[in-house]
Amino acid sequence: MNFCSDNTTGAAPEIMAALAEANAGQTMPYGEDALTKRLTARFGEVFETDVAVFPVTTGTAANALSLALMAPPFGVVFCHREAHIAVNECGAPEFYTGGAKLKLLDGSDGKIEAETLAAALAGAGAGDVHHVQPAALSLSQQTEAGTVYGTDEVGALCEVAHGHGLGVHMDGARFANAVAHLGCAPAEVTWRAGVDVLAFGATKNGALAAEAVVVFKPELARDLGYRRKRAGHLLSKMRFVSAQLEAYLAAGLWLKNATHANRLAATLARGLAAVPGAEVIHPVHGNEVFVRLPEPVIAGLLADGFAFYRRGGENATTLRLVTAFNTRAEDVRAIVDAARRHGRSAAQ
Amino acid sequence: MNFCSDNTTGAAPEIMAALAEANAGQTMPYGEDALTKRLTARFGEVFETDVAVFPVTTGTAANALSLALMAPPFGVVFCHREAHIAVNECGAPEFYTGGAKLKLLDGSDGKIEAETLAAALAGAGAGDVHHVQPAALSLSQQTEAGTVYGTDEVGALCEVAHGHGLGVHMDGARFANAVAHLGCAPAEVTWRAGVDVLAFGATKNGALAAEAVVVFKPELARDLGYRRKRAGHLLSKMRFVSAQLEAYLAAGLWLKNATHANRLAATLARGLAAVPGAEVIHPVHGNEVFVRLPEPVIAGLLADGFAFYRRGGENATTLRLVTAFNTRAEDVRAIVDAARRHGRSAAQ
Amino acid sequence: MNFCSDNTTGAAPEIMAALAEANAGQTMPYGEDALTKRLTARFGEVFETDVAVFPVTTGTAANALSLALMAPPFGVVFCHREAHIAVNECGAPEFYTGGAKLKLLDGSDGKIEAETLAAALAGAGAGDVHHVQPAALSLSQQTEAGTVYGTDEVGALCEVAHGHGLGVHMDGARFANAVAHLGCAPAEVTWRAGVDVLAFGATKNGALAAEAVVVFKPELARDLGYRRKRAGHLLSKMRFVSAQLEAYLAAGLWLKNATHANRLAATLARGLAAVPGAEVIHPVHGNEVFVRLPEPVIAGLLADGFAFYRRGGENATTLRLVTAFNTRAEDVRAIVDAARRHGRSAAQ
Amino acid sequence: MNFCSDNTTGAAPEIMAALAEANAGQTMPYGEDALTKRLTARFGEVFETDVAVFPVTTGTAANALSLALMAPPFGVVFCHREAHIAVNECGAPEFYTGGAKLKLLDGSDGKIEAETLAAALAGAGAGDVHHVQPAALSLSQQTEAGTVYGTDEVGALCEVAHGHGLGVHMDGARFANAVAHLGCAPAEVTWRAGVDVLAFGATKNGALAAEAVVVFKPELARDLGYRRKRAGHLLSKMRFVSAQLEAYLAAGLWLKNATHANRLAATLARGLAAVPGAEVIHPVHGNEVFVRLPEPVIAGLLADGFAFYRRGGENATTLRLVTAFNTRAEDVRAIVDAARRHGRSAAQ
Repeated sequence: MNFCSDNTTGAAPEIMAALAEANAGQTMPYGEDALTKRLTARFGEVFETDVAVFPVTTGTAANALSLALMAPPFGVVFCHREAHIAVNECGAPEFYTGGAKLKLLDGSDGKIEAETLAAALAGAGAGDVHHVQPAALSLSQQTEAGTVYGTDEVGALCEVAHGHGLGVHMDGARFANAVAHLGCAPAEVTWRAGVDVLAFGATKNGALAAEAVVVFKPELARDLGYRRKRAGHLLSKMRFVSAQLEAYLAAGLWLKNATHANRLAATLARGLAAVPGAEVIHPVHGNEVFVRLPEPVIAGLLADGFAFYRRGGENATTLRLVTAFNTRAEDVRAIVDAARRHGRSAAQ
Repeated sequence: MNFCSDNTTGAAPEIMAALAEANAGQTMPYGEDALTKRLTARFGEVFETDVAVFPVTTGTAANALSLALMAPPFGVVFCHREAHIAVNECGAPEFYTGGAKLKLLDGSDGKIEAETLAAALAGAGAGDVHHVQPAALSLSQQTEAGTVYGTDEVGALCEVAHGHGLGVHMDGARFANAVAHLGCAPAEVTWRAGVDVLAFGATKNGALAAEAVVVFKPELARDLGYRRKRAGHLLSKMRFVSAQLEAYLAAGLWLKNATHANRLAATLARGLAAVPGAEVIHPVHGNEVFVRLPEPVIAGLLADGFAFYRRGGENATTLRLVTAFNTRAEDVRAIVDAARRHGRSAAQ
Repeated sequence: MNFCSDNTTGAAPEIMAALAEANAGQTMPYGEDALTKRLTARFGEVFETDVAVFPVTTGTAANALSLALMAPPFGVVFCHREAHIAVNECGAPEFYTGGAKLKLLDGSDGKIEAETLAAALAGAGAGDVHHVQPAALSLSQQTEAGTVYGTDEVGALCEVAHGHGLGVHMDGARFANAVAHLGCAPAEVTWRAGVDVLAFGATKNGALAAEAVVVFKPELARDLGYRRKRAGHLLSKMRFVSAQLEAYLAAGLWLKNATHANRLAATLARGLAAVPGAEVIHPVHGNEVFVRLPEPVIAGLLADGFAFYRRGGENATTLRLVTAFNTRAEDVRAIVDAARRHGRSAAQ
Repeated sequence: MNFCSDNTTGAAPEIMAALAEANAGQTMPYGEDALTKRLTARFGEVFETDVAVFPVTTGTAANALSLALMAPPFGVVFCHREAHIAVNECGAPEFYTGGAKLKLLDGSDGKIEAETLAAALAGAGAGDVHHVQPAALSLSQQTEAGTVYGTDEVGALCEVAHGHGLGVHMDGARFANAVAHLGCAPAEVTWRAGVDVLAFGATKNGALAAEAVVVFKPELARDLGYRRKRAGHLLSKMRFVSAQLEAYLAAGLWLKNATHANRLAATLARGLAAVPGAEVIHPVHGNEVFVRLPEPVIAGLLADGFAFYRRGGENATTLRLVTAFNTRAEDVRAIVDAARRHGRSAAQ
């Protein structure tokens, strides 16, 4: 059983069915098909406002394209020190923006605080020709620590950002998990709180390869079509990406899947917390559990065939375990039971 | 019936089946799955040599990544004036190379001649600090005029290119159609003729979204993983792209599909050539037919509901018609019959 | 005697004197000195309008920065096939714009005609996501053929350009020679005719290293300070560049120098035209003479120690000869006399 | 009296004389002149090895070009958190490298320690496709804190860097001050210690605008000519830059000037240290003094007309004072005396 990431899973049956259905007949390519066209309206309903929607196949593309709409080559994007865009995208933001800088901010539990952002902006050299210029704030929702920003927290951050003329990007690779946790309307934690562009993820939560750049400010979307094409992210048979997104949004699949994953992560966290010597190190809001375990427990779990990532290198004892839309309750039970067993052995 | 392009079709049933099969179970993400790993060996068999293989989802990405391996920011890529990389990719080569130039070469029937390349290189200012530096030759196989380079033609071009220190890229969006036409081993028209990197296309010929950068010179592949990731083209659930490519290569599907499309294009060309006033303007080697038709015939076909692209603007009378892996013989018959009927009416 | 270019000369005594004067005392760096600040007003007087002025040290920098203000990475800059930005700047426009394309237009005597531009724009795919987007027109004044656009010609081109939403850049490496030829106010052939940004050259006409980006539309200048700094073109001891420009504009030095060079070029052209077998191939408006000479004449001149460039490669018989602010009448006489002598010998 | 920076001064008389001398006669442009050509040999003598030398007019250009030789677009440059390339160049390294990242390292007194670099490299994700790849180390000599790395410190850092396959760049904007402090051969603290490329500064120490990229590894210099031209940093009348550098190196001017500045900085530091409440916060190795002073003292000095930068914003009480090649002993005395006077007043 593999708890390394939610992208170790395949796709949800509803998504596979949508693909099969989309395969019938001929359509115009490059998003000029009816399915893609109606997707914009569908997203508009979900977000209760007019949006521009640009489907792509990876979260890295969605993030980097979003940032390129807001940050000029001499711009700065403020983000958390552990942000995916900073750590795990091999410089995609720099590539797509033409060389903008990321300014890394500290913050506990994966979150930036509004005060931290304000302080960073105060010292950022805005208007000084020797300094790169503040351009955007990037928030991950859910964060890289598995936590979720409250709508008020997003609002406070956006207020600081907009007060300094910055655009706001939300990396929503696990946006569904965040919304499922908050139980709020998607609009509440995005544009109503001040988010300008959302990289809306579906892949980790049941799609094969489907993300969308959702733009809440029409003027920001003007160049996006050219930038997407130029980056090689305009698929000729776009209907196959759009079909995934449509099915994902239909009948609440996206929230159903995320709720399932979140619930099992909570179960997992509770279970592991009871292991002697264990410490859950971040609040578990979504589908990720960060837990410190005694090395003998880790060794035992690995020997049992469980898979997960160590956080911070080969011998680190902090683990990240991720649940997915199709993680089974018995698998969570199995790893918890095994951990407890190894914990008791170690304690003796 | 839509003859606009081979990307107006859906996917082949074999490809859909492979997707469904790939969906089972968990795998490691980002290409660390068994399916992706065995793909390299499979391509090696098809091309009879060791290759490095990097699956992506669009031809534009495959082309631009390929060129970035060979052309520095101050480099020049020589290509045909009508090349897809020059005309239809919104500047992707410039984006991925960091600003290299495309030098557009003339040539009839979509082909560059070795002499034309040699002349261009002689005047290219190699070694002169004021001039961008010759770096790569890009060939489309099949060409944008629907023709196919012979292996000797490719060989002659590559000899000139290599003689000047250039790398050679082949845009193989319709590589299967070219190989089906030539009836040669894939190796003959690629690395044995001097091609260094092939953008191997599958999408137009039956996949949903699957292309591969196939690198014949290991040293060229060294940076490709980073460049692909940085461009947002490393899919997390990569197995779904790899599964398409595996099925595409299995049991000769790729050549079977292409042979079918080529055969119907030949039928279509023969049929349209007999329309009064018609002129097929390029040899029909693969699955594209370029034909000049009297405006009344065009108007009649449009009124009948046939779809196709005019070449050269709204009122142009040169059409491009493209057949695909699943084009039906009766559809070809239908458009030919209609064109003849309109042609006879117009002639009266 | 060297007629290769106007940059084989040193600097004018007035410029050298200004440097010495600027050397006194301390000033704030990076253009925050009084001399640089008053330069903007001075340019404003010369051009009879408010301008933003950014001094730099090379024409390539001035051109590339100008283009970066108007062309996005997915943009197209329309220019003459022989434009310096296209042929002699090693891809600087592509570098500074982040990968925009140059679209090369044909035109006799180094000039683009308004009809040619209009036709190119009609087929440029504006609004089509697969195509790079028309962004700017770049004109060289004087042109690379030594001719000068009339104010009406500039006006007609700008009208077409603006009608399609393009900005207009003027490469004014030899702007003084052009204005001296036209005898018009600098405003007439720039902003009043529709030019948005001028790369104003001084180096070729008597400065050591001084050019200026002169922006006629304030909103275009907004980012220029950051782009200049980022490109390494904000000099710390900027006063030394500004001093050159101030002296250049003072007391009409720029036009006096250019008038001298133009006059000698006319003399040179008349003289060479009389050589048997000679053909002056472009109208001589400014300080460049393009002349076809019999090979024995060329060989004779080279043997005499005259220096000049052949146009089109090692054995080409078309020469470019350039006069400068300090070219002496006796040097022009000397080369003309020598050419005639060699011409007579060859004719015998 | 202005102690803001060493670039508030003009140029040394020897440099001005060299300019005047270089102005005589005609030469071929773009560095094809005799003066520029002999410069390479001259640098070779100074550094006791074969070097490639590329003159430019700004330190930012010299630094960014140097980094572009070593860091690919997906590369990482390790540097001190306060490095000029990180803080004061408006993203020039990102621009020239095509989007490489700077990884900011901590270290007291402006210096990176070898252990810090080693630790950063251990966690840098070398070989992991999701991470930008370690490419270069950049050291400032003298540092931004006014200190100077010892040859052993440079050696230890280069050993770590080379052990991980990194190139080493030295930002030598104040290289002369560093060498004057160390009293070593220039070779000792550069290539013999492991430095691959030096951005050799002259502007701050007596030139108008002259820096040079000095490359110690020939293979690194191969593309530099194209990159410099493309960036607009190949001056047409290059002899005027080369003349400055030649005069700078002649008769030990560079070290004479730097020794003077260093000596006065030491005097200044000693003098200010005696002010009640003052604290000199970094060792004064070169020509920069960082000192914390009571606000009343600062206010008094400003009222007296002395100029300097506050470090860390408008109300910061840490000052940077910089001496230059032509700072006068009486000016140093004057500010010291004034500070003491204000200090005594404040203490009463």
